[in-house]
Amino acid sequence: MATQAVQQDTDTRTAPLDRLSDLLGDDMLKVNELIIGNMQSDVPMIPQLAGYLIASGGKRIRPLLTLACAQLFDGNMNRAHGLAASVEFIHTATLLHDDVVDGSAERRGKQAANLVFGNQATVLVGDFLFSRAFQLMVADGSLETLRILSDASAIIAEGEVMQLTTAGNLKTTMDEYLQVISAKTAVLFAAACEIGPVVAEQDTTTQQALHNYGLNLGIAFQIADDVLDYNADQETLGKTVGDDFREGKMTAPIILALEKADEEERAFWQRTISDKEQTEDDLTQAQALFEKYDTLNAGMKMARDYADKATASLPPKEKGSALCTALHDLAAFAVNRAY
Amino acid sequence: MATQAVQQDTDTRTAPLDRLSDLLGDDMLKVNELIIGNMQSDVPMIPQLAGYLIASGGKRIRPLLTLACAQLFDGNMNRAHGLAASVEFIHTATLLHDDVVDGSAERRGKQAANLVFGNQATVLVGDFLFSRAFQLMVADGSLETLRILSDASAIIAEGEVMQLTTAGNLKTTMDEYLQVISAKTAVLFAAACEIGPVVAEQDTTTQQALHNYGLNLGIAFQIADDVLDYNADQETLGKTVGDDFREGKMTAPIILALEKADEEERAFWQRTISDKEQTEDDLTQAQALFEKYDTLNAGMKMARDYADKATASLPPKEKGSALCTALHDLAAFAVNRAY
Repeated sequence: MATQAVQQDTDTRTAPLDRLSDLLGDDMLKVNELIIGNMQSDVPMIPQLAGYLIASGGKRIRPLLTLACAQLFDGNMNRAHGLAASVEFIHTATLLHDDVVDGSAERRGKQAANLVFGNQATVLVGDFLFSRAFQLMVADGSLETLRILSDASAIIAEGEVMQLTTAGNLKTTMDEYLQVISAKTAVLFAAACEIGPVVAEQDTTTQQALHNYGLNLGIAFQIADDVLDYNADQETLGKTVGDDFREGKMTAPIILALEKADEEERAFWQRTISDKEQTEDDLTQAQALFEKYDTLNAGMKMARDYADKATASLPPKEKGSALCTALHDLAAFAVNRAY
Repeated sequence: MATQAVQQDTDTRTAPLDRLSDLLGDDMLKVNELIIGNMQSDVPMIPQLAGYLIASGGKRIRPLLTLACAQLFDGNMNRAHGLAASVEFIHTATLLHDDVVDGSAERRGKQAANLVFGNQATVLVGDFLFSRAFQLMVADGSLETLRILSDASAIIAEGEVMQLTTAGNLKTTMDEYLQVISAKTAVLFAAACEIGPVVAEQDTTTQQALHNYGLNLGIAFQIADDVLDYNADQETLGKTVGDDFREGKMTAPIILALEKADEEERAFWQRTISDKEQTEDDLTQAQALFEKYDTLNAGMKMARDYADKATASLPPKEKGSALCTALHDLAAFAVNRAY
C-alpha cells in the first residue's frame, strides 16, 4: 500500500494540524465566531444550509494557514481573522457547488447538503457565501488581498470547468492533471498562505515564498487525496473507496497506469472511464493494475516531491518557531496521512 | 388587458432603451469589448458557454444604467466602462445559476445554457463570471464600488433563496413579495445606478438619490414582468405565457387575486400553486380570476407607482439633458412595454 512505507513516523501523520490548531486556538475561536456571525441572514434557510456544512467540521486547514502565515511574521491578527473567515467561505461555497456538480451523496461523513436542501438552495447559498467572502474582504479594506482572492476565485472556477472536460478523457496528460489540481485546490492554499505576509506587511519576495509554499502544499495534498481515494485502508476509516473511479475522474493513479498500459488494459480503461460502463469487479481490477505498475506509490512519490518543494519555501525548520515547525510538518502530513 | 390603457404613448413603449443605447453608443462599444475580453479563458468551454448567453443579447439595461448615471454627472467614463462590465457579469452569473435553479428550458428566445452545456458547467461558468466581476472591480481600485457590488451580490443571493421558500406558499404577503423582487432584481439596478455618481465623485446625497432611482425602477420592472407573464399578448411576441404559474411562483397577480378569493377559488390556488397539480385549463382559469378581480391592472398600477417614485429621485426632466430625459422615460417604459 502506498502509505505503509512511511507509517512509522506517526507524529507527522496526525499531529501537525492539531498542533497548528493548538498554537492558534484563540485566533481560530475568533475566526469561527466570524464564520458563524457572517453566515446569518433573515432568510432562515441560509444559516441552516451553511451551518449544516460548516458545523460538520472539516479540517479548517485554509484558515489555519492564513493565521499561521500571518503569525509567522507578527502580522495584524485582527485582519488575519477576517481574511481567514473569507478564505473559508470561498472554500465552503466551492464545496456546495461541487456537491451539486458532482451529484455527491456524502460530504464530511454526512449526507451532502444538496440531498438535504435540494440543488437549488445549495447553488444559491454557495453564491451567498461567496458574496459574504467579498464583503469580509471589503471590510478588511485592502485591495491587495481582494486582488489575491478574486484572482484565486476565477482560477478555481476555471479549474473546475477544466476538470469537467478532462473527466473520462483518456488523453488527459499528467501536465493537464497538475493544471487542474493546481487550479481547483492549490491556488486557494496559495492565496490563504500569501495573505499572511500581506497583513504582516512583508515584501513581495516573502509573499511569493509563502504563495509557493501554499501552492506546492496544495498540489501535494490533492495528489495524495487522489491516491488515497483508491486505498483499501480507507474502508476501515468509514470512507468509500473508488469514488473518483466511478465518476470517471482522470487522476494521477489512472494517468500513470495508462502510460504503461498494454492494449487490453487500455480497452479496460476505455470501457470503465471513457464509456463509464462499469461492473462490480472493475474497481478491484483497477486496483490490481495500480499494484502491477506500482502507480499508487509512484503517485505518493510525486506528492512527496511537491511537499519537499513546499517546505523549501519556508524559513528553515531548525531556526524557526513552533509554528514554523508545524508548517514544515504539515507538508509531511499531507503525503503521510491515512485519510 | 393591463397594458392597453397606456398603449397610446408609443414613444415610451420602445424608445427609451434605444435612445440610451444611441446616446451611449461609443461607451457601450467599450463595455462590450471589456465583456468579450474578460470572458476569455484557456478553458474553451468558458468563452463558449458565456458567449452563448451574452451573444444572445439581452437588453444590457444594467450597464446602460451605470454609463448613463456616470455620464449624467460628467463622471470618469473609463472607470464606468469597467464597472458596467462588472455589473453585467454579475447579472449574467445570476442568470446562469437561475437557469439551473429553475430548470429553465429557454432564455432570451434560445435554449437555456444548462440544456446545451449541462448544469455542471453552467454553475461553474457562473462562478467564473462572478469572480471576473470582482477582478474588474479590483482593477478599478475603488473600495466604495467593491462595497456597493459585494453588498448587492449578497442580497441578490438572499432574495433568490427567499424566492425558493415563498414558491408555492399561499401565505406569502405582498410585503414579502416586494422584499423578494427588491433583493433579486432591484438591488442590482440600484447598485448599477449608484456607481454612476460614485465614479463622478458626487456627494452621498446624490449617490443615494440615484440608488433610489435604480431600486424603484427595478421594482417597477419586475412587477411589470410578473404581470406580463400572464398577458396573452405575449404569445404574439413568441413568448410563453404562464411560466410563473407552472413554477408555482407567488407573484403580484396571484397575491392580489388571493386577497379577494372565495373558498372555491382558494381551493383552486391551493391545488395549482401549493400542490402544483395543474391541468391544461388551469392557466385559463387563473387568467379568468385575474380578470374577475382586475388584478393585472392593479399590478400594473403598483408598478406605475414605483416608476413614479423612481423618477422623483432624478433631476427634473425639464431642466435635464437628453440623457436625463431618457432615464425619466425609461421608468415609464418599464411599466408600459409589451414585452
